[in-house]
Amino acid sequence: MDTQFINILGLIAGTLTTIAFLPQLFKTWKSKSAKDVSLVMMITFSVGIFLWIIYGIAIGAMPIIVTNAVTLVLALMILVLKIRYR
Amino acid sequence: MDTQFINILGLIAGTLTTIAFLPQLFKTWKSKSAKDVSLVMMITFSVGIFLWIIYGIAIGAMPIIVTNAVTLVLALMILVLKIRYR
Repeated sequence: MDTQFINILGLIAGTLTTIAFLPQLFKTWKSKSAKDVSLVMMITFSVGIFLWIIYGIAIGAMPIIVTNAVTLVLALMILVLKIRYR
Repeated sequence: MDTQFINILGLIAGTLTTIAFLPQLFKTWKSKSAKDVSLVMMITFSVGIFLWIIYGIAIGAMPIIVTNAVTLVLALMILVLKIRYR
């Protein structure tokens, strides 16, 4: 596979695993209900994403920093709604 | 930061963002309820994780392949439970 194709593949993968949290955020916001969403998942995932950002900074990989920064914002918003709507 | 520390950081980040799905899987399995979990999130996320595996194979990065393969199995299990328990 040529490099450009591989980079595009990584960009699409990163975009999908980032925007995936938008429908959850929207659903929780609309339904005001988060009973079935695991609080432990959201906390563990957020800590993991935060470490990915530190990792991205450490190796100077902008795509890792940017995609995970957006994911962290979305994950933290879901976490806040989860705590609010239990 | 030295390379070994950075590799450990990536390993911890990858482990956390992978095992994060275990509490959600366990909660959905136990409660038999997934109303608040977004189906679109789980589908989008699973497709993204699948592409990360292809990306990992393309660049020959075993950590990306392994962590995302485990994540994909967990995400697909949650997806199946979501469809079953709506």
